[in-house]
Amino acid sequence: MTWRGPALDADSRDLATMLDALAEDRNVVLTDDAAVAAALIKELAGLGVWTVGVAEEHGGGGADRPVTAVALERLGRNWPALGWAATQAHAAVDVLGGDDRCTDLVADVHAGEAAVAVVDSASLHVRLTRSEGSLTGCVDRVDAAAEAPYLLVLTGKDRAVLVAPDACTATPLRRTGLGGAFTRSVGVEPRPGQLTEVRGVDVAAARRRLRFGTAAVAAGIAGAAADAAASYATDRRQFGGPLTALATVRQSLLGQATRTAAALALAVAAADDDVQALAAAREACDAAVDVAAAALQSHGGYGYLTEYPAERYLRDAVSLRAAADIQGAAVTTARTLVGLEPDDEPRGKE
Amino acid sequence: MTWRGPALDADSRDLATMLDALAEDRNVVLTDDAAVAAALIKELAGLGVWTVGVAEEHGGGGADRPVTAVALERLGRNWPALGWAATQAHAAVDVLGGDDRCTDLVADVHAGEAAVAVVDSASLHVRLTRSEGSLTGCVDRVDAAAEAPYLLVLTGKDRAVLVAPDACTATPLRRTGLGGAFTRSVGVEPRPGQLTEVRGVDVAAARRRLRFGTAAVAAGIAGAAADAAASYATDRRQFGGPLTALATVRQSLLGQATRTAAALALAVAAADDDVQALAAAREACDAAVDVAAAALQSHGGYGYLTEYPAERYLRDAVSLRAAADIQGAAVTTARTLVGLEPDDEPRGKE
Amino acid sequence: MTWRGPALDADSRDLATMLDALAEDRNVVLTDDAAVAAALIKELAGLGVWTVGVAEEHGGGGADRPVTAVALERLGRNWPALGWAATQAHAAVDVLGGDDRCTDLVADVHAGEAAVAVVDSASLHVRLTRSEGSLTGCVDRVDAAAEAPYLLVLTGKDRAVLVAPDACTATPLRRTGLGGAFTRSVGVEPRPGQLTEVRGVDVAAARRRLRFGTAAVAAGIAGAAADAAASYATDRRQFGGPLTALATVRQSLLGQATRTAAALALAVAAADDDVQALAAAREACDAAVDVAAAALQSHGGYGYLTEYPAERYLRDAVSLRAAADIQGAAVTTARTLVGLEPDDEPRGKE
Amino acid sequence: MTWRGPALDADSRDLATMLDALAEDRNVVLTDDAAVAAALIKELAGLGVWTVGVAEEHGGGGADRPVTAVALERLGRNWPALGWAATQAHAAVDVLGGDDRCTDLVADVHAGEAAVAVVDSASLHVRLTRSEGSLTGCVDRVDAAAEAPYLLVLTGKDRAVLVAPDACTATPLRRTGLGGAFTRSVGVEPRPGQLTEVRGVDVAAARRRLRFGTAAVAAGIAGAAADAAASYATDRRQFGGPLTALATVRQSLLGQATRTAAALALAVAAADDDVQALAAAREACDAAVDVAAAALQSHGGYGYLTEYPAERYLRDAVSLRAAADIQGAAVTTARTLVGLEPDDEPRGKE
Repeated sequence: MTWRGPALDADSRDLATMLDALAEDRNVVLTDDAAVAAALIKELAGLGVWTVGVAEEHGGGGADRPVTAVALERLGRNWPALGWAATQAHAAVDVLGGDDRCTDLVADVHAGEAAVAVVDSASLHVRLTRSEGSLTGCVDRVDAAAEAPYLLVLTGKDRAVLVAPDACTATPLRRTGLGGAFTRSVGVEPRPGQLTEVRGVDVAAARRRLRFGTAAVAAGIAGAAADAAASYATDRRQFGGPLTALATVRQSLLGQATRTAAALALAVAAADDDVQALAAAREACDAAVDVAAAALQSHGGYGYLTEYPAERYLRDAVSLRAAADIQGAAVTTARTLVGLEPDDEPRGKE
Repeated sequence: MTWRGPALDADSRDLATMLDALAEDRNVVLTDDAAVAAALIKELAGLGVWTVGVAEEHGGGGADRPVTAVALERLGRNWPALGWAATQAHAAVDVLGGDDRCTDLVADVHAGEAAVAVVDSASLHVRLTRSEGSLTGCVDRVDAAAEAPYLLVLTGKDRAVLVAPDACTATPLRRTGLGGAFTRSVGVEPRPGQLTEVRGVDVAAARRRLRFGTAAVAAGIAGAAADAAASYATDRRQFGGPLTALATVRQSLLGQATRTAAALALAVAAADDDVQALAAAREACDAAVDVAAAALQSHGGYGYLTEYPAERYLRDAVSLRAAADIQGAAVTTARTLVGLEPDDEPRGKE
Repeated sequence: MTWRGPALDADSRDLATMLDALAEDRNVVLTDDAAVAAALIKELAGLGVWTVGVAEEHGGGGADRPVTAVALERLGRNWPALGWAATQAHAAVDVLGGDDRCTDLVADVHAGEAAVAVVDSASLHVRLTRSEGSLTGCVDRVDAAAEAPYLLVLTGKDRAVLVAPDACTATPLRRTGLGGAFTRSVGVEPRPGQLTEVRGVDVAAARRRLRFGTAAVAAGIAGAAADAAASYATDRRQFGGPLTALATVRQSLLGQATRTAAALALAVAAADDDVQALAAAREACDAAVDVAAAALQSHGGYGYLTEYPAERYLRDAVSLRAAADIQGAAVTTARTLVGLEPDDEPRGKE
Repeated sequence: MTWRGPALDADSRDLATMLDALAEDRNVVLTDDAAVAAALIKELAGLGVWTVGVAEEHGGGGADRPVTAVALERLGRNWPALGWAATQAHAAVDVLGGDDRCTDLVADVHAGEAAVAVVDSASLHVRLTRSEGSLTGCVDRVDAAAEAPYLLVLTGKDRAVLVAPDACTATPLRRTGLGGAFTRSVGVEPRPGQLTEVRGVDVAAARRRLRFGTAAVAAGIAGAAADAAASYATDRRQFGGPLTALATVRQSLLGQATRTAAALALAVAAADDDVQALAAAREACDAAVDVAAAALQSHGGYGYLTEYPAERYLRDAVSLRAAADIQGAAVTTARTLVGLEPDDEPRGKE
């Protein structure tokens, strides 16, 4: 296995090896085929990976950040849509795990049998209006690796609203990356009983969970792209030598490796505060896009051949960066950084 | 029309307007459908656009760089695969236009009825070996907007070799960008009479032609992406105001506009020397990739909806940068910059 | 001479050659020595360079943008503080040239005998308040290459206010770059008759003048730094070969050259609109900082020796970028780009 | 204290607090004043900070990487020349600590009474030739915070050569950053007995020590610059509000904070292998240069006032990047990455 991050203990290494073996055995590039995605998610749940980082008191694996990052990074390498869905599963249980009304749903999430798309009302892409206890409107994009997920809307410092799938009208979005994400826009128009308001929860912690998860998944994409480029450049011979005989090729590979290393160091080791969580997510997503684009160049004309996954990594990276709304997260975090409330401006979002 | 480049004279403006009207009228996103691409190319040839910048003495339109750049930039906005094919048509006639043996081919190129893929033997992606007057091997990738193009290999300072289509075995490459380019890898195994060696031509000038053409096409992709993002952000309303009410959104749009402006200034106005030609091509290709990725973010979750072309621009940008082998061109030009021969090293390419 | 920009006509080339000869003859690194700077300015004025691009009807040389850019680029290479002061002289006469009350001042500016610092009330660094026909407050920084310059404050779309030197209290600022700029903060507290309000002038044009001038001066710094690095790498021998034998060194030099080329193409050829003017200034200032930092690395441990000017270029680049308030200009231009008024927000500046 | 890195334990936090208190108490900006620098170094040695990360068996503090990084980061914030000198002290003892011939020197290094400049024969800036057991030539630049340091040349995988001060002719270099580094070029012409050849040592480990130390010191510069900008933008009021009321200002501050976070995560947590060590050093040095330049812009016209240290941070960052020869390290590491020997090419360095 390749892992350009902080040193791993034996358990983490075993976890990564197991997931590598699984990926090699399944050897599948995910599409929005519901049966395939669902089976894989249940398998990951059975292995304890799907919610490995959730606190044990909430039914999760209780793993610390390094172990969780390893799991999500490996998903990012092979099935990034599942990595992002697992990240949302973690955040959903973080928020709902202590709520008696959600016991069944939480159990189903742990089992990989229910999906929750977690979105942030502060995002420009969430256009929901609250009035008289209800919540209506539209979410531009959710990616929950399921056709009809629950929707968990983070609405304040300590509040969130859970929307049942039958209150949602999901419209599939055609797109090019994150196969298996079942990307959808969602119209929300609930009837009584279809909303569950949750209070007294730590929404900021759930956001950090989403950001660190994004970071690990994106680092996985970057790592996979960098490895593919290195492998291609080592194997491909040109006039009697491998491409790695060329200094310019080596410098590009080194740049890919170092960006990946920076993303992993942040994902695994950054402190659990808002600014560092944003730093981790943004650095990793930008790294994934840049590394994948560079790796594509390293493949030359063959970056596009279907036997090479180079261009898929780029599509996945761009798509994950949009799905995780890194740009919106940066706007909010910049306000936090200088001590302003995230959303006290008339325009609401800046 | 939007044009973030140097001021245009009336003729250039008319040309751009005509091409905008044609694009709007045809309203087609190109795929590798041979009939559609061929018809469009012939139409462009009929309008005098296809080889507008070729010297009149060689049968072209005799346009200067600004006019040529306008034509290629417009192609880049709408059908970048044709922009790149037209660029190669220019370079092919630059090299072959004065050669009596090629009179018919040159006429066919002007008429849009013959295609020539122009490749550089210094490129890592060209693996052709000369021996006993022949040339055999493989070219990883050609993109000539035709199924069975001629191959023109630039082999030295003043030499090139034209390979007839029936000496080539073309294998279509599956890929995601540059629809209509008919991207292929090409095996070359000529029989007697299928090669034409051309001497006494200015290969460096043909390379500069390719670089400036690449720059204009890439600037077109960047401009189209930036315009799409600006349009989306102006129209999309959020809580009572357009997205452009947000400072962060405006700064991203400004960044997209300024990168496009830099690309166009170089494509139109840079001096006709090797370093500036490389600067133009590299800046424009990098700008196209970065601007398209930023424009995709500007669209949020909707960047992927098929009614928006945002993600296509990114695929086109990445694909054009690979097709034009900017990385290889940089290696060669860096040698030229410091007064070294382009290819006197044992490894040949660095 | 080195000039990595658009092709020059004979007159421009002669101008550049003349200025190169002057620089070689004088061979002085400017400091805030008033006699030296004043003598040099008068000499440049005598040669017709100081206001070469001002319209003839206002007493200037009537040169077009390319010629003006050449003059300012050469100043940027040798005496960037004078390049920036000459840029402000151009903008000052653009605004004041048609005003009968300013005839003497304009003549003195042309002669290099009066200096005008031109500042923008929209800048964060200008904290002046208008009330009852007066203007009081403070300007954080002016750089006019003179100890007690006039102050010309651009205050609206068609208005500006000229402040006489004796209404200003200038406090020299210690800093590291732009030697000869006589950088000062200026307190403004005018008595009656010390202000001249000018109306009906094209303030946007004056801003574009400042931006394109900044671009040319910054491109000069970048070009000088790139040339110094190339020269060092060519001359410095290491184990039997020059540093340019190394691919990594060549790629760095190429990057320096291409950034310089992009800056010059914009400075010379970009269209005269607000967005392209900002693009030119920002690209050139960023290029100057990045190229100077890279050139410093190219010198290795010797970048700091006083016989090499490498680190001075970096200080000049950083200082010019701050003096021209590129960051503030970007905020204003981003508003213009999307059709908002530059300054209709309560906070005034964003 | 501000620390945008991985969470610290109580001991690390105490160490940082102690060093902050010392810096506040001394309140000195270092210059090449030998008495001041020497006193400060001895004081740091007395506090156990100077070689805190050296193994206990070699007489050091035995601290792990996080603690060592905290110590060096704090030095980087206040006296980066001492941070770099302490880094070299660590590497020197790593190499010499087990050698009986060097017992006295090692003790003096721990006590802050002897200085060792550690240089790499693979660096372009080290031009030393071995012949007949001797080593002669020149080192372009050493920065050991002392006037006449020992020179430790890393010459192979398991070899190094220690050069006594009296075999060296040091020539001070005028430069602008790293005050207190006593930057010198050094001519080496040893007489018998002035060289000590050391074998069987882990030179790769010493290089990693240098890289991780560089990373921590550079992260300190970046952090200090980011903090200064945030503090300025919070305090400085403009038309009724602080600068942080502006979205553009906040985004710049956020970018400075996230770059600092990435640098610290790598410096503290990256695995101890060659690629990650290079990643840490390069990311941190680039972050220091970029953050310092951005922080300078955040200060506007006041970045240059002597009461603000903004521009000093930029000079320190650029100077440290050159002193640590990050560019040369990248060339060597890129070879390692693809499995080539660091130095088996005829040109020796690429």
